Amino acid sequence: MASKALAIIAGVGPGTGASIARKFSRTYSVVVLARNPDSYNPVVQEINSSGGQAIGISTDVSDSKSVNAAFDKVQAQYPSSKVAAAVFNSGGGLVIKSFLELTEEDYSTALGSQAHGAFNFAKRAIPLLLQARESSNYPPTLIFTGATASIKGSAKFAAFASSKFALRALAQSLAREFGPQGVHVSHTILDGVIDIPRTKAWVFEHEDAKLSPDAIADSYWYLHTQPRTTFAFELDLRPYIEKW
Amino acid sequence: MASKALAIIAGVGPGTGASIARKFSRTYSVVVLARNPDSYNPVVQEINSSGGQAIGISTDVSDSKSVNAAFDKVQAQYPSSKVAAAVFNSGGGLVIKSFLELTEEDYSTALGSQAHGAFNFAKRAIPLLLQARESSNYPPTLIFTGATASIKGSAKFAAFASSKFALRALAQSLAREFGPQGVHVSHTILDGVIDIPRTKAWVFEHEDAKLSPDAIADSYWYLHTQPRTTFAFELDLRPYIEKW
Amino acid sequence: MASKALAIIAGVGPGTGASIARKFSRTYSVVVLARNPDSYNPVVQEINSSGGQAIGISTDVSDSKSVNAAFDKVQAQYPSSKVAAAVFNSGGGLVIKSFLELTEEDYSTALGSQAHGAFNFAKRAIPLLLQARESSNYPPTLIFTGATASIKGSAKFAAFASSKFALRALAQSLAREFGPQGVHVSHTILDGVIDIPRTKAWVFEHEDAKLSPDAIADSYWYLHTQPRTTFAFELDLRPYIEKW
Amino acid sequence: MASKALAIIAGVGPGTGASIARKFSRTYSVVVLARNPDSYNPVVQEINSSGGQAIGISTDVSDSKSVNAAFDKVQAQYPSSKVAAAVFNSGGGLVIKSFLELTEEDYSTALGSQAHGAFNFAKRAIPLLLQARESSNYPPTLIFTGATASIKGSAKFAAFASSKFALRALAQSLAREFGPQGVHVSHTILDGVIDIPRTKAWVFEHEDAKLSPDAIADSYWYLHTQPRTTFAFELDLRPYIEKW
Repeated sequence: MASKALAIIAGVGPGTGASIARKFSRTYSVVVLARNPDSYNPVVQEINSSGGQAIGISTDVSDSKSVNAAFDKVQAQYPSSKVAAAVFNSGGGLVIKSFLELTEEDYSTALGSQAHGAFNFAKRAIPLLLQARESSNYPPTLIFTGATASIKGSAKFAAFASSKFALRALAQSLAREFGPQGVHVSHTILDGVIDIPRTKAWVFEHEDAKLSPDAIADSYWYLHTQPRTTFAFELDLRPYIEKW
Repeated sequence: MASKALAIIAGVGPGTGASIARKFSRTYSVVVLARNPDSYNPVVQEINSSGGQAIGISTDVSDSKSVNAAFDKVQAQYPSSKVAAAVFNSGGGLVIKSFLELTEEDYSTALGSQAHGAFNFAKRAIPLLLQARESSNYPPTLIFTGATASIKGSAKFAAFASSKFALRALAQSLAREFGPQGVHVSHTILDGVIDIPRTKAWVFEHEDAKLSPDAIADSYWYLHTQPRTTFAFELDLRPYIEKW
Repeated sequence: MASKALAIIAGVGPGTGASIARKFSRTYSVVVLARNPDSYNPVVQEINSSGGQAIGISTDVSDSKSVNAAFDKVQAQYPSSKVAAAVFNSGGGLVIKSFLELTEEDYSTALGSQAHGAFNFAKRAIPLLLQARESSNYPPTLIFTGATASIKGSAKFAAFASSKFALRALAQSLAREFGPQGVHVSHTILDGVIDIPRTKAWVFEHEDAKLSPDAIADSYWYLHTQPRTTFAFELDLRPYIEKW
Repeated sequence: MASKALAIIAGVGPGTGASIARKFSRTYSVVVLARNPDSYNPVVQEINSSGGQAIGISTDVSDSKSVNAAFDKVQAQYPSSKVAAAVFNSGGGLVIKSFLELTEEDYSTALGSQAHGAFNFAKRAIPLLLQARESSNYPPTLIFTGATASIKGSAKFAAFASSKFALRALAQSLAREFGPQGVHVSHTILDGVIDIPRTKAWVFEHEDAKLSPDAIADSYWYLHTQPRTTFAFELDLRPYIEKW
C-alpha cells in the first residue's frame, strides 16, 4: 500500500500556519514545525482527532542542526512517504525600531529566522520534492510566505525588510532553478494584518479588514494544485480595504 | 425567480477567452465579446448545447460606441441579471518591429486595443459590478489579462509594451479605488506562449512548454472566488520551463 | 566651421523645461517646443540675450503632423547641425478624478500627451540621434520625464498613470533597442511636487519640500554626459522630505 | 582651521573602490577599508603622493567588532573632522552554484559580507553623517553598491541575490528614515561586468562592453552633490551593449 504523501509546514502557530496545516491535511499527512510545541500542539490534535494525520516537531528553523534533525525524524517516521508540499511560513524577525535603536542582535535574529531559516528548510525540502515528482498528483510545491516588507523597505523596518527581501530572492532563485525541473516554487506577499489570535484586539473601521488565514490557506492549496504548464510564482494578498 | 448572474468576457477566440467562458458558464450566463463572430460562435454554441447559457456580441473594444452598444444589448436582454464578473482578455496590438519601422498606426492600434479598449470596457463594467455587490456569492470581479510586456519594455515591443503597461496602470488604479468598495480588480501576467490553435505549430523542446488556457481559466475562477478579506491583485503565470 | 549641436526639448514652460533649456544652452543651441508660445518665449529670450542660442516652435506633441512640422523646421533652420540631445518633458494629461467621473476625453488626452506625444517625438528624434553618434562629445541622448504615476497606478489616477506607464514602456523599449547602437535613452521619475510658478502657493511644513527644476536639469545633464560604458536608464528624484 | 571632511569607503580594491576613493579624495580626506591591506595600499599611496590625504584600515565588514575598531580609529585620528560621505562598496559573497551544491557557509558568507556588513557599516556611519549636516557643502551621503542580483534572483544565485536584496532593503529603509533628516541615502545597481584587473581577460564582442570604474565613481560623486530638494535614491548603471 502506498503511503500517504506528506506536507511539511514550518512556522505553525494558531494563525496562518494552522490553517495551512488543516487545509493540506485533507489530502496529506502533515508535519508541522515550530520552536515551541505549544504553538503546534492544538492543530496537531485537532487534525488527528478529525480523521487526519499530523505530527509536530519542535524545530528552530534558524539552526541548521535543528532543521536537519527534524527532517531526519520525518524520514525515519515516514520512510516510504513522498513530500508533496513544503511551506515556509515562519514568523520571527519583525521588529519596528529606528535604525539608531536597532541592535546587531535584532538584525541577526531577523536574518536568522527568515533568510537562514528559509535556506535551511529549502536545503532539506528541495531534494525531497525532486524525489516526489513521479508519484505526485500535483507538481511538488515549495511555498514561501512573504509580507509587505518583501518588496518595500520602510523606515524602521531595516531588519525585517532585509530578511524578507532575502527570502524573496531565495524563492526567485529556487523557482528559476527548480521550476524547469518540475518543482513549483512560489512566494506570497501577505500585505495586511492577518486575523489571528494575536491581532484580535486590533480594531479597524471595517470589521473584515484583516486577511483570513483560511483564505490564505486556500490560496496556498490553489498554488499547489496548478499544473506545471501554468505555474504562478508570486501572489499578493490583501484585505479589500487595505491601502497600498 | 432570480435571474442567473452574468459573466461578461471581452476577447474571446478559440484560446484563453473560450476557456474562461467555459469555466464561468458553469455558474453564470456568459456574454462573450469579440470583433468577429467567427471568434466566439464555436464556444457560444458549445456552451448552449451543453446546458449552459451564452451569447456573443460583435464588439470592437477600441470603439466606445461599440462597447456601449454591446452593454446596452446585454442590459436589454438580461434586464434583471447582475454582473458577477467581467474579464478583459482582448488581444490585439502585438506587433514586433524595430522602432524605426513602427508606424503611428501600429502604435495607435495597440493603445486602442489594450488601453482604450480596457477603459471602454471598465467604464461600463464597473457600475454594473458595484450594483452586484449585495447579491453575489463572491465579490464582483474585474480581471484584466496582461503579458510579459506588462512589466518589461523589450526592444521591438514599443507599441505592445506601451499598451500593456497602460492596461496594468488602469488595473492598479481601479483596484485601489474599487477594492475598498467591494469590487475585486485583478491583473494577470501571462508570461509565456499560450497553447492555442494559432501556436499549435510552435514546437519547443518540451511538449508541455505552453500555458494551458484551461489552467489560466481556473486561475481566473480562483481569483473570482476569493473573499474580500483576501484579494489578490496580481498573479504571474508561466510554463515551468519558461526562462524569466 | 562646424555648426553647434542641438538640444531639442519638448514641454517647456516656466519650470523644469526652462531649467533644462538653460542648462543645455550652455553647450548647445536649443530648440524648445510647447503648444503655446507664451510658455517658451521667456526662456528663449533669456537664453538669446545672455549669449546662448534658442528658438521656440509652437508644437502639439500629441499631433504627429505638428511634431513633424516642428522637426522639419528645425532641420531647415539648422541644416548642418547634429542633434546631441532630445528631452521629452511634456506635461498634460494629469487629471485626478474618480474613474466614475473620468471621461473618454480625459483618458484620450492623457494618452495623447504622454504616450502618443512621446512616440511622435521619438520617431523624429531617434534617427537624428543616430546620425549624431560620430560627431558628439557625449553619446546622443534621449530623456523622458516620468512621475510617481509612472510606477504606481493610484486611485483616481487611471488616465495619468496609464499614460505615464505607457511612456515608461516606450522609454525601456527604446533604451533596449538603441542603447546597443550608442544612443543613450533614459527615464526619470520625478516623485514630488516641483517648485514652479504654478506650485508657488502650495506651502508645506518644510520650505524646501519641492523638487528644484535646476537640480532636475543638472541631473539631465549628468545623464547626458555619461559615457556609453556606463549608462543609467532610470533615476528617481524626490525631495528629502517626501514620503515614498 | 577647520579640518577637512572625510569620506569613508568600505570595499576598496583595484577597481571601483579605488576609483571612488580617487574621486572623493579631490575634496575630502579619504579613509578606505578592506580586509587585506594589499587591496587598498596602492590607492592610498597614490592619493597621498598626488597631494590628497588617505589612510587605509584593515577591516572585516562582516565583523561588527572589526568595523567598530575601524571607526574608533578614524575618530581618534581625525577628532575634529566631519564625515561628509560614506560608501559601502564591499564585494564578497558572489558564488554561482546550483542550490544543491550551495553550502550553509556560502550562504552565511554572502549575508555576512553584504547584509551584516552593510548593517555594521551603517550603524557607525549614520550617526556621523547626522553630525555633519550643518557643516557640509553637500548633504551628507551614504551610498550602497548593488548589482543585477539586487533586483533579480537568478538560478544559481541564491546566496548572492539573498544578500544583495537584503542590502537594498536596508538602503531603502535608511533612505526613508534619514532622508527626511537631511542625510542622502542612495543605492546603485551595477548591471554588468566592471572593467577591473580581475575581469581584464574577459573579452566581449565590443571592446567597451564593461562598466568603467571611473564613470561609476563620477556617478557616486554626482549623487553626493545633489541638493536635498532633489535626492535620487536609485541609479541603475550598465554598459550600452548590455542585455537587460
